[in-house]
Amino acid sequence: MQSAPAIQKLLDELERLPGVGPKSAQRMAYWILNSDRATALRLAQAIVEVKDTVHFCSRCFNYAEDDLCEICRSTSRNQQLLCVVSEPRDIPPIERTAVFQGVYHVLGGALSPMDGIGPDDLRIPQLMQRLGSEDIREVVLATNPNVEGETTAAYLARLIKPLGIKVTRLASGLPVGGDLEFADEVTLGRALEARRVL
Amino acid sequence: MQSAPAIQKLLDELERLPGVGPKSAQRMAYWILNSDRATALRLAQAIVEVKDTVHFCSRCFNYAEDDLCEICRSTSRNQQLLCVVSEPRDIPPIERTAVFQGVYHVLGGALSPMDGIGPDDLRIPQLMQRLGSEDIREVVLATNPNVEGETTAAYLARLIKPLGIKVTRLASGLPVGGDLEFADEVTLGRALEARRVL
Repeated sequence: MQSAPAIQKLLDELERLPGVGPKSAQRMAYWILNSDRATALRLAQAIVEVKDTVHFCSRCFNYAEDDLCEICRSTSRNQQLLCVVSEPRDIPPIERTAVFQGVYHVLGGALSPMDGIGPDDLRIPQLMQRLGSEDIREVVLATNPNVEGETTAAYLARLIKPLGIKVTRLASGLPVGGDLEFADEVTLGRALEARRVL
Repeated sequence: MQSAPAIQKLLDELERLPGVGPKSAQRMAYWILNSDRATALRLAQAIVEVKDTVHFCSRCFNYAEDDLCEICRSTSRNQQLLCVVSEPRDIPPIERTAVFQGVYHVLGGALSPMDGIGPDDLRIPQLMQRLGSEDIREVVLATNPNVEGETTAAYLARLIKPLGIKVTRLASGLPVGGDLEFADEVTLGRALEARRVL
């Protein structure tokens, strides 16, 4: 493609975004070229601003603009209930359920011996320190239901249980609205094992 | 979602992009948050730069950084062969075929009485002026094969033919690699009408 260099540079940068291939990068680039200057600059400004103002919450390591994130600053959250997640991006889906009213701790990843990620590469020391200094009664392990997430959950459970704190894990089972026919064996097996009396 | 305001602002701006819904905006926002500052700022800078440096080619109305676009500046193109397209985004797919060696004219849309877009809203006067002043032997009408594109092509053909210039239209037919079984009736009808002797 014989593009102006500035367009080519924009295409290159857009293609770095997750889920954006050459075709969608081109659609976005033409949208930016077609849009009025103010709209395009608002996008550029939002990118700059997020890098300038957002950092990690000093307590839970969620994204925050101030020293503490909005959840840690809130006075309506149950401070005795702590949910451990791998990444900040895992918090919004949990918040959307409106079921969890406690606070969070973000590990910044999951244990993965294959990738050389051990306990010291995650914010596990900071978690243990919080469990020592804060009055936490229950830790919900909400790492992903995959190999790394399960390994991390098992490791943390062994570490936290001796402190006399209740440790729970997100339930595995059939997704609501899902189809039994299309469930994989592992999920269906877990759903059977965890069957409830009605 | 209880996001920091800067993250929410970025999500709002990303969602304006074509083909980007709430989920992909969130993936992109987290990618930007996770990436190092330099990478994120390169994207912001590319957006600013494209708005600052790219405008329309004064001859063909393709996107250009200088007065003329790269195609109009090229000395290796056939200046007697002119391809008329609706939008600048229609040029890269034609260039990628490497079949067309002429120059372009971008109309900036297509005739659409329904949307109130008439000949004066497109760069048709500029096209007629080029046909009067440049030595053009053939005009290839490469507007889209839909109602507006066909209307525009028919209108331009009526306007240009009296000047004694050869007017051609992109062929309609079955897409190469396509399946006859899944071809729509109109396309298959066109392919039959335009059948070639072997």
